[in-house]
Amino acid sequence: MNISEFAKEAGVSVSAVSRYFNDGYLSDDKRALIEAAIERTGYVPSYSARTVRSKVTKLVGVILPKLSSESIARITEDIGEVLGEEGFELLLVNTSNDYNREISSLELFRQNRVDGVILLAGVITDLHRSLLAKMRVPTIIVGQKLKGFNCVCHNDLGAAYNMTKLMLDKGAKRPAFIGANPEDMAAGKDRRIGFEKAVLDAGLTLDPKFCEIARFSMDSGYEKAKHLFSGREKPDCLFCATDNIAAGAMLYCRENGIRIPEDLMISAVGDSRFDKVLYVSLSSVHLHYKTAGREGANMLLAEMKKTSEVHRIVQLEYDIIERESTNRIG
Amino acid sequence: MNISEFAKEAGVSVSAVSRYFNDGYLSDDKRALIEAAIERTGYVPSYSARTVRSKVTKLVGVILPKLSSESIARITEDIGEVLGEEGFELLLVNTSNDYNREISSLELFRQNRVDGVILLAGVITDLHRSLLAKMRVPTIIVGQKLKGFNCVCHNDLGAAYNMTKLMLDKGAKRPAFIGANPEDMAAGKDRRIGFEKAVLDAGLTLDPKFCEIARFSMDSGYEKAKHLFSGREKPDCLFCATDNIAAGAMLYCRENGIRIPEDLMISAVGDSRFDKVLYVSLSSVHLHYKTAGREGANMLLAEMKKTSEVHRIVQLEYDIIERESTNRIG
Repeated sequence: MNISEFAKEAGVSVSAVSRYFNDGYLSDDKRALIEAAIERTGYVPSYSARTVRSKVTKLVGVILPKLSSESIARITEDIGEVLGEEGFELLLVNTSNDYNREISSLELFRQNRVDGVILLAGVITDLHRSLLAKMRVPTIIVGQKLKGFNCVCHNDLGAAYNMTKLMLDKGAKRPAFIGANPEDMAAGKDRRIGFEKAVLDAGLTLDPKFCEIARFSMDSGYEKAKHLFSGREKPDCLFCATDNIAAGAMLYCRENGIRIPEDLMISAVGDSRFDKVLYVSLSSVHLHYKTAGREGANMLLAEMKKTSEVHRIVQLEYDIIERESTNRIG
Repeated sequence: MNISEFAKEAGVSVSAVSRYFNDGYLSDDKRALIEAAIERTGYVPSYSARTVRSKVTKLVGVILPKLSSESIARITEDIGEVLGEEGFELLLVNTSNDYNREISSLELFRQNRVDGVILLAGVITDLHRSLLAKMRVPTIIVGQKLKGFNCVCHNDLGAAYNMTKLMLDKGAKRPAFIGANPEDMAAGKDRRIGFEKAVLDAGLTLDPKFCEIARFSMDSGYEKAKHLFSGREKPDCLFCATDNIAAGAMLYCRENGIRIPEDLMISAVGDSRFDKVLYVSLSSVHLHYKTAGREGANMLLAEMKKTSEVHRIVQLEYDIIERESTNRIG
C-alpha cells in the first residue's frame, strides 16, 4: 500500500498523511481519520512517504571508532536525539579504529547517500584531510581539532594534567602512564603531554620505562600493566588514557596483590558508569560527551542551513571526579 | 579523479584497478604500477569503483537495540568480520530499544538501500512481523526465535535456570529477580521463566514482591534493587537478566552495607569483561555472542546465495561462570 492508496483509504489528502508522519500541523478530525485507517490497514509509511514534505533524504552518517564504548555511545545517543527532533535518522558505521575503514566510510557517505556526516575522530591522516576537504555534504568532527573544519573537542591536555597532578600532590614519586596511540592527537598525544607536563611541573623526571602505549581495551590495559610491573622498580601512581585501560590495569593489580591506592594510586579519563562499581572505585575525569554530541549535531544543522560560513572549534572543559583509587594520605 | 582517469594515469586497465581494490588476482607488475600511481595522486577508490567487479552495492544493514552494550558490540564486530571478508560494509542503526525506530529502520533498509539486513532483535510486535514478511532483501534475526525466518538465538531459559539453581543449591531460600521487559521473549520472558522454574523445582515459592522489571541499564538496576530492599523481608539471592542491571544492583548494595555474597548472592547473564573487576567479581552466564554474530552473518551470506530455501533456527548453548558473588558455603 503506497501513500496515495492509504490517503484514499483514510479519506484525506496525501499531504495530510505526510504531515501526520512528519509531525506537521493537522486538524484533530484528520488525525482521527488517519489513525483509524492505520488501525484497519496496518499501514507503515514508506521512507519516501515520510519525506514527501521536505523532499530531502533526511539521513546523517555517523562514523564511529568502536562500538563497545560508553563514551562513544553517549556522544552518539545525543547526536541522535538532537537530529531526531529535526526528522533525521542516523546511519552508523563502525571502523574498529581502522584508518582504512574510516576512509572507505567517508567515501561511502560522500557518494550523496546522506545529507551530512559526523566523524567521531581518532587518528587523522593526510588521506583523511584530503577526503574531508572533498566532502559534498556538511561534515562535523567530534573529538579532535582540525583546522578548516567545524569541530567539537575536549580539553584532553588539561584533563590529563590535573588528574596526574592530583596524584602527585598526594605524594606519588614514581608516576607511570598507559596511554593510547600518539597519532590520536586528543586521546593519545594531548593526554600524554598533560601527564608529562604535570610530572615535570612537580619537579620529577619522566622515566621512559614507566610509559606504555595500549590499545583502547581492557585486555590491552592488563598486558601493559603487567609489563610496567615487570621491572625492579615499581611505579606508585598510574594515569591511564581511558577507563577501559585502567580497568584492565586494575585487574592485573587485583590478581597480583598490588594494593590500590596503598601501593599504587590509579586514575583515568572517561568517568564511565562502571567506575563506581569497580573493586576500588576509580578516580576519573568526566568529559562532557553528551554535550559534545548535542553541540556536534547543532553545528551540523547550522551548516546544513548555511547560517554561518565561519568554521569554529568548540573545546569543552572537564570535571575531576575523585574516588577511592587516589585516596591516599601523602 | 574517477576510476578511468586513474587507470590511465597508472597505465593499466580499469578492470585491473577494480581487481586491485577488490583483492582480486593481479600480476606483481600491475600491482606495482597501481601502487606507484596511488602514491603520486593520492587516489581513493570511489564506492562504485570498488564494486565494478561484482555489480552489487555490497552493503548490509544491521539494526541494533543499543550502543553502550558489550554483548551488542561483540555480536556486531563478528558480523562485520565475516561480511567484511566477502566485501560487504555494514550500515548500522541504533534504535535505543524503541519499537518505532526499529520499524522505521526496517522500512529504511527495505527501500533497496542494502543487500541484506540483520536485526538484533528485542521485542517483536505484529508490526515487525508484517514488515519482516515484506522485506525485499534477505533478513536474519539474531537474539530471538521467530518462525518463518532464519534466526540465531541463545538458550536464555536454560541459562537463567542453571544460574539460579546454582544459588539455590548453595542454600538461598528467598530468591529475587530483576528482569527485563517480558515482551522481549529472549532476555525478558525466557530468562524469567528459567528463574521461576528453578525456584519451583527447588521446592520454594515465588514471591511477587521479589520480582522487578528493569530497563537495560545500570541506573535502572540500582533503582529496582532499592525497591527490592525497601520491604521488611529481604532476599538472600538475586538473579539479574543482564550484567548491567546486576552492576547497578551491586552499587546499591555497596552503598547500603549489604554484603555480597554473605547477605546476598548475586548473578546475571552476559559475562561482560568488567565482571572480573567489580568490587565483588560477578558470577554470570557466558552466552556465545561472537559465535552468534558469525553464525548470523554466514546465514545471511547463504540466503544471499540462495543455497537453501529452508529456514532454520540455530540455538546456541551457554557456560556458567562462577565468581565470588555466588561463593557462599551453604
